[in-house]
Amino acid sequence: MRAEIVSVGTELLLGQIVDTNAAHLARALSELGISVYRRVTVGDNHARLLAALRSALSENEVVIALGGLGPTQDDITRETLAEAMGDTLRYDEAIARRLTAFFRERGVPMPDSVLRQAMVPVHGFPLENPHGTAPGLIFEKDGKIGIALPGPPGEFVPMVENHVVPYLRAKTGTRTIRSRVLRICNMGESLVEERVRDLMAGDNPTVAPYAKTGEVHLRVTARADDPQTADRLIEPVVREIEARLGDHVYAFDEEPLESAVVRLLSARRLTAAAAESCTGGLLATRLTDVPGSSKVFRGGVVAYSNESKSDLLGVPPGMIAQFGAVSAEVAEAMAQGARARFGAEFGIGITGIAGPEGGTPEKPVGLVYIALADSRGTLVEKNRFLGQRKEVRYRSAQYALVLLRDRALQAPHAPSTNG
Amino acid sequence: MRAEIVSVGTELLLGQIVDTNAAHLARALSELGISVYRRVTVGDNHARLLAALRSALSENEVVIALGGLGPTQDDITRETLAEAMGDTLRYDEAIARRLTAFFRERGVPMPDSVLRQAMVPVHGFPLENPHGTAPGLIFEKDGKIGIALPGPPGEFVPMVENHVVPYLRAKTGTRTIRSRVLRICNMGESLVEERVRDLMAGDNPTVAPYAKTGEVHLRVTARADDPQTADRLIEPVVREIEARLGDHVYAFDEEPLESAVVRLLSARRLTAAAAESCTGGLLATRLTDVPGSSKVFRGGVVAYSNESKSDLLGVPPGMIAQFGAVSAEVAEAMAQGARARFGAEFGIGITGIAGPEGGTPEKPVGLVYIALADSRGTLVEKNRFLGQRKEVRYRSAQYALVLLRDRALQAPHAPSTNG
Repeated sequence: MRAEIVSVGTELLLGQIVDTNAAHLARALSELGISVYRRVTVGDNHARLLAALRSALSENEVVIALGGLGPTQDDITRETLAEAMGDTLRYDEAIARRLTAFFRERGVPMPDSVLRQAMVPVHGFPLENPHGTAPGLIFEKDGKIGIALPGPPGEFVPMVENHVVPYLRAKTGTRTIRSRVLRICNMGESLVEERVRDLMAGDNPTVAPYAKTGEVHLRVTARADDPQTADRLIEPVVREIEARLGDHVYAFDEEPLESAVVRLLSARRLTAAAAESCTGGLLATRLTDVPGSSKVFRGGVVAYSNESKSDLLGVPPGMIAQFGAVSAEVAEAMAQGARARFGAEFGIGITGIAGPEGGTPEKPVGLVYIALADSRGTLVEKNRFLGQRKEVRYRSAQYALVLLRDRALQAPHAPSTNG
Repeated sequence: MRAEIVSVGTELLLGQIVDTNAAHLARALSELGISVYRRVTVGDNHARLLAALRSALSENEVVIALGGLGPTQDDITRETLAEAMGDTLRYDEAIARRLTAFFRERGVPMPDSVLRQAMVPVHGFPLENPHGTAPGLIFEKDGKIGIALPGPPGEFVPMVENHVVPYLRAKTGTRTIRSRVLRICNMGESLVEERVRDLMAGDNPTVAPYAKTGEVHLRVTARADDPQTADRLIEPVVREIEARLGDHVYAFDEEPLESAVVRLLSARRLTAAAAESCTGGLLATRLTDVPGSSKVFRGGVVAYSNESKSDLLGVPPGMIAQFGAVSAEVAEAMAQGARARFGAEFGIGITGIAGPEGGTPEKPVGLVYIALADSRGTLVEKNRFLGQRKEVRYRSAQYALVLLRDRALQAPHAPSTNG
């Protein structure tokens, strides 16, 4: 089966937003074994969108249009895809009632234009959108499939996972591409590549490295007639990489470092708390992004000012005066303070200079002390991170997670209550 | 002048990387006043790349191909663009010498394939690439321009800025596109559109709405012979929109809400502190993302557990027992606690259920109480946010910023030291 992706939006043509939806969908299609030979982006222009859809439909069995399903005049995908498919739209009472209820519940007046979103294919059906107002649409006509999906990623991603993938899986045969990503921390791309260079020469599966901020990913991809065979090709290579890189492999596929850390702490019944200065809550935010993190993350303090470092975390004012707020000593005291205040096994303290201002020759922008306190004592690391404010903050939180993970890996396993 | 962008690379079609280059180039072209009506992505396949280039050349004066200039067999852009342009390639001795020197200096043996990168247009010229081995290429033939640029962003971006933009600026007249974005909070897209619908009918400037998570953007875009004239067309429309939407317009162009809030607090000499439960530090993170925020943001507490709500913020344990941790009463007490602990003018308290677990029929996922305490008292808002964990958290922080901004706008101006 062959598909084309048509992204719709003048803001894409003007480069005002980056098309992450198309990449997400392309990945999902490739895992279904559906070939994509071309992707096209057009603006909110009826004639050009119609031409793109017709051209795509003439060469592919499936055409998926992204964006342009909203209530405004600019949103022309619904009508234009119907036209390209040779179908018409009908007014769906159930969707109209849901839209009306949505606005009533919020006590907001509903503009008439919203009801355009209740128009659905005569030959086809709507896809539920629990995260927004515009349903997705599937047209099925003359042996072709046309799919229209909403543009906001928070609506688009779940609709792809919950509706489009299962629908297309049912429609496709078996030839498939599968891949597995190994996520690696605390090791640079060149070193990772050196360790697995011989595996990168392989053809099926292929092994390719991707450098990310503060980590490296290795993607292992296999082609086969069915997912099971593909997985059997992937598995030994993944195990070989794991054997070579050891604990540096922190997770697989989409799981971010914070989630791997929460999982590890959870399995070992360990808890953590954070005292953050230059990261301003980013470490806490990343940890609490993970569902279920409340079991292992006790809480945090964002202590920007010297007073709050002393009042809330018990850092002695004299220490700050003697060594400065950005110092190994203060990072240690913050980590110990967080540990004590929240009664956690691990306390993390982060203090540094994120920039763009506040740097000096002795304490330049990017200087960050990260400390970790536990029952065995307190260790502190001095880092000099490159990049702008956002990168310095991100790398600091990333490094704190690496430190926390390392320390948790060394901790003895808690006895299992199930054992 | 009209251009089409052709991105080349199977990894793009598989969704393994996101095409930030195309967005970067599109932005540069739009600032030069060059219209882009379509963008296409194809894989490393000769027939399909040739078809895409020919189709693009038939409808545009300029075609820019991104990627596929490397030394490997997969890299077919150089030869295929020459073929589409009806041109041939010649071996450039100077480039060959530079490539040989590049490898010699690094003490690395040079594969013969590298010398493919010394092939340049017979009708046209190469573009220097100080950040990599593959030069860019410009073909000029039969009134058409074909440009090939290397894929790695570290090579691509400087080549666009230093060579492609100056070259195309010289080729185009002075005609230019300029735009201004008004960023709007606390008002839905439909309502915004209702208020400015007549302005959206305009042709130059155009006015287009974009729905973002928790806010709406209105983009005003004008075409003119020079930037000054374009700005003169934009200005009265921007002022008219501001007059109609009032304080809902919180900033312009790239400035996010947290930055507008820090700017406002700063101007009025006001300070804030946060007590966060379900947002887990996200409000603090967004505020401290803004350079200079340390002057207005006193700090925050991430209080996930009931104990930390009581210990660090002074929320009475009996109140939590009576009303539950997710309640208007606890949100108020958290806001008051943050205000008192950090000695700030404004204290914000956020407590809710971000999901995916923890919801009940009475307190469903997405229920979030947001309270703001100041010298005039404490107000609390009950919200029901849609979306998954990340969105619920983001919308909660967004709404807290809206509340903080509203309240700061009502606060009396501090006397200016300059006045």
